[in-house]
Amino acid sequence: MDIFNDEYFMRQALNEADDALLEGEVPIGAVVVMENKVIARGHNHTQRLNDVTAHAEMEAITAAANHLGAKYLNDCTLYVTVEPCVMCAGAIAWAQVGTLVYAASDPKRGYTTLERPVLHPKTLVRTGVLAEESEKMMKDFFASKRNG
Amino acid sequence: MDIFNDEYFMRQALNEADDALLEGEVPIGAVVVMENKVIARGHNHTQRLNDVTAHAEMEAITAAANHLGAKYLNDCTLYVTVEPCVMCAGAIAWAQVGTLVYAASDPKRGYTTLERPVLHPKTLVRTGVLAEESEKMMKDFFASKRNG
Repeated sequence: MDIFNDEYFMRQALNEADDALLEGEVPIGAVVVMENKVIARGHNHTQRLNDVTAHAEMEAITAAANHLGAKYLNDCTLYVTVEPCVMCAGAIAWAQVGTLVYAASDPKRGYTTLERPVLHPKTLVRTGVLAEESEKMMKDFFASKRNG
Repeated sequence: MDIFNDEYFMRQALNEADDALLEGEVPIGAVVVMENKVIARGHNHTQRLNDVTAHAEMEAITAAANHLGAKYLNDCTLYVTVEPCVMCAGAIAWAQVGTLVYAASDPKRGYTTLERPVLHPKTLVRTGVLAEESEKMMKDFFASKRNG
């Protein structure tokens, strides 16, 4: 059995989300995978960097491009624990990411709420991988913010 | 007569676009203005940084937040020489930019091609300021790419 499946890599993205949580950030994480290897990681840093654009996906895309020395990520899979927002979907489109896999949906801010497709037409999408864990992490985080 | 009008600041954004051009980048520039002062600048760096997310607006927003030590740009005006793409519009929304002013429209990649409004509902928008100059710059650039 191949251990390098979607759950394996989504677990790595959830580890990134855990790191975000420890830093007091919204718990969202991402990894970029090429040929079964994680080539880039990222997690939310909007608080620490005081920068609304410092989303997990943006970090991971920039890091992957740096790693490859190439702008386009056609042969890569981006795993992210929550459905990308419109900004990140735009970045994923520009980067021509080969495959996008996300866990939890974001019915409020997610890019699929847009009527026109935003991603590059060749990007494959798979959703729902470890969605419950990611959703729980987000719910707990926002509940703790409200109560604390 | 107030010299600090939209044309004055769009001229600054066009200067940034000029800098991009000199560096072989797509000629798009942006400035962020608060109380009639330019507090941040940016121009396209996708080639040099090998990073599809290095758009003028993204740079300018991050720089403005750094300058202010604050994430939200409610009291700022963002001037950009070309209509923002979906990614940048998403960033402008997260940053809650007070006013957006752009010169040339981008009927192919511009965020207004989306049916659902992407910007923050409080963001004001003005368009067409120095549009011809910006359009000429873009056209010349892509023409020179095709012919050279």
